[in-house]
Amino acid sequence: MSAFFWLQDQGMKEFFKVQTPDQLYRKMDRFRALSSEKVHLEDSLHRVLYEDIISPSNVPEFPRSTVDGFAVRAEDTFGTSEKNPAILRIVAEIPMGQVSDIELRDGEAVKVATGGMVPKGANAVEMVEYTEFVDPHTIHVFKVLSPLENVIQVAEDIKAGEIVLRQGHWIRPQDVGLLAAIGKTDLLVYRRPKVAIISSGDEIVPVETSPKPGEVRDINRYTVFSMVQESGGLPTFLGIAKDRFDDLKEKIELGLRQADMIVFTGGSSVGTLDLTGEVLQVFPATEILGHGISIRPGKPTLLADIGGKPFLGLPGHPVSAIVIFHLFGKPILKILSGFSRQGIWHQTKVKAKTTRNIPSVPGREDYVRVKLEEKDSVLLADPVFGKSGAIRHLTQADGLIRIDINEEGLEAGEEVDVILI
Amino acid sequence: MSAFFWLQDQGMKEFFKVQTPDQLYRKMDRFRALSSEKVHLEDSLHRVLYEDIISPSNVPEFPRSTVDGFAVRAEDTFGTSEKNPAILRIVAEIPMGQVSDIELRDGEAVKVATGGMVPKGANAVEMVEYTEFVDPHTIHVFKVLSPLENVIQVAEDIKAGEIVLRQGHWIRPQDVGLLAAIGKTDLLVYRRPKVAIISSGDEIVPVETSPKPGEVRDINRYTVFSMVQESGGLPTFLGIAKDRFDDLKEKIELGLRQADMIVFTGGSSVGTLDLTGEVLQVFPATEILGHGISIRPGKPTLLADIGGKPFLGLPGHPVSAIVIFHLFGKPILKILSGFSRQGIWHQTKVKAKTTRNIPSVPGREDYVRVKLEEKDSVLLADPVFGKSGAIRHLTQADGLIRIDINEEGLEAGEEVDVILI
Repeated sequence: MSAFFWLQDQGMKEFFKVQTPDQLYRKMDRFRALSSEKVHLEDSLHRVLYEDIISPSNVPEFPRSTVDGFAVRAEDTFGTSEKNPAILRIVAEIPMGQVSDIELRDGEAVKVATGGMVPKGANAVEMVEYTEFVDPHTIHVFKVLSPLENVIQVAEDIKAGEIVLRQGHWIRPQDVGLLAAIGKTDLLVYRRPKVAIISSGDEIVPVETSPKPGEVRDINRYTVFSMVQESGGLPTFLGIAKDRFDDLKEKIELGLRQADMIVFTGGSSVGTLDLTGEVLQVFPATEILGHGISIRPGKPTLLADIGGKPFLGLPGHPVSAIVIFHLFGKPILKILSGFSRQGIWHQTKVKAKTTRNIPSVPGREDYVRVKLEEKDSVLLADPVFGKSGAIRHLTQADGLIRIDINEEGLEAGEEVDVILI
Repeated sequence: MSAFFWLQDQGMKEFFKVQTPDQLYRKMDRFRALSSEKVHLEDSLHRVLYEDIISPSNVPEFPRSTVDGFAVRAEDTFGTSEKNPAILRIVAEIPMGQVSDIELRDGEAVKVATGGMVPKGANAVEMVEYTEFVDPHTIHVFKVLSPLENVIQVAEDIKAGEIVLRQGHWIRPQDVGLLAAIGKTDLLVYRRPKVAIISSGDEIVPVETSPKPGEVRDINRYTVFSMVQESGGLPTFLGIAKDRFDDLKEKIELGLRQADMIVFTGGSSVGTLDLTGEVLQVFPATEILGHGISIRPGKPTLLADIGGKPFLGLPGHPVSAIVIFHLFGKPILKILSGFSRQGIWHQTKVKAKTTRNIPSVPGREDYVRVKLEEKDSVLLADPVFGKSGAIRHLTQADGLIRIDINEEGLEAGEEVDVILI
């Protein structure tokens, strides 16, 4: 019995099992973050912290000037002006990177550069622009300072013992800077998920091949590979499976041995994913979490848990595969990668106005591909139409608009959130 | 003469040379994209196309069904309904990946799966859900089809000879899919810019070190390194230069030999960047494009062209360095990487409402760090205050608000663009 015939027989049964995206999202909670590994600070960008980071020391450890100028007592500048400057005696210069034991007293000034140490007794720094030499040892000071002006105090930036970054945090350049500031050269991060990619479909041929009539090139293997890379995973490709029980089983077994997650793309026939659902039952610890989602594009999606490893079966249509991987594959990868709850569900969205009416059928969530264009400083979302079996129109799209399961569409000019892709 | 003294002497002269960010942006036009290299499709994600991509063939090359069902003549379904089905004779099945020479006639149907070939004579496909077997060779068809319904025609997705992606395009997963569809396994992309990073400042010590009083760890070397990685560049670190002419000169010479761009971070003293400006004059082909920008944070920024190679001198304050690299370093790297004009200046921005008044001094562009929070489905931008010499507050920020050079600040509740960082 071919996959296609099977589908037809089981059609009605399958139909009633269709779930909403939210139902499936909730089931993803069962997946767990992977183990940890140690990386050097230089390799920590875009990794996820496995540990809370506690600062071992104060930053800064000494009071620092934020300007080039003269450390003074703020009180000595009270009442000064351009016409009525204070006269201060320069008693020292503190070179960069050095300390001084000097204790500044009334009427005294110490020359400091930005980042330099502010000596004891001083509580503010007058910028060089507001001073004038009277003689090599004396300056006029023109501007009133408040106490602590132009000074970073000890521990003002970071306090010793304080948690500065938390487990589950995705490391950005500024976070790398913070870790550098406290001398954290090695850190524990979550291991990157290994993802096995399996293509299938009797009509699918490798990209290097010139397809014969009836055949098409394996697009999904490359789009999924790229999206796994984008999500911080480590993709490997296991090849194109024929739409046959044994071939599918063998590839899935290999994936389970090698990887933390399997992403399967089902060829364009819906039947392949159904056959795959049958194959998964062979593995003892399999639980099918969903097969069929009330979503467009992407209804045939299959999600299973095989002994703790996620198995995501994507529809074969290239556009459906990309949309479903974006909506389900990325959050699963983020769960495995140890992202915080907030990070897992974060999507970068911008607000835009639709350029035309966009119809939708209630009863399914619709993801409409749109191109973003700014016109008279209004951001417009212009739907890019194309069948889900085509690919080109998606290269003209910048994002997706979600139309809720209960909505009948959007009107032209409506403000919507666009998920950037 | 120390850098600091030199600054003081030259202070007024320097002051008059301060440029607006826009003036400096315009001068960046002189930099040119690097040469090309060949990469395999699998390594093409986030690279920039060096060539226009022309499709050698039609996609698809044969008419394909977008559903599981029966290929028919649409005309045979006209007038049908649940109660009044058309009766069609099944004359063949076209398996996936195969072709058929059959030519369908009036009253006939051919079984096809999604992605399968639609035979000659047929012009639409009835979904299996709207059919019913009468006997193994005969079906009832319930739903009216319009011609071409559920069919992707030859070349509907991509036409042979058409330019599908242009030089300067930044490759996303969907673009990788498009390249796969047309069998483009190897492509020419721009070479990734090599970026030499030099730190300086007599107070700056390597991160591994426990700073002595007066010293601080080299934060910028790590933040800049990460930001270069994020921008698709290849960073190398050349070490910490002392604030001395010869040491600076030696490191810059090394950078020019090894890299396509130099990013220099000036220690926290403004004087270092001034001394660096002097050092650059030693190199015969140097042109200083700007030294001092009317921007906060980041005023002391230095930009030079050394025989075609950009030299970006960042202020030493960690926050200033990050903001300036984001605003100037990234676009320069994008120019070298071959981005299209639109891509060079693209920033991901979201609209948000300010949570409080934010003052600003006219005469300089202000970049205010903000944290984004959604409340009652309104996105709020809450300023995160902190001195530019500190780092921690930037790890709490999600983006930057730009306050125009002519504005006196923003009012609470004002809608603003937030540049995501």
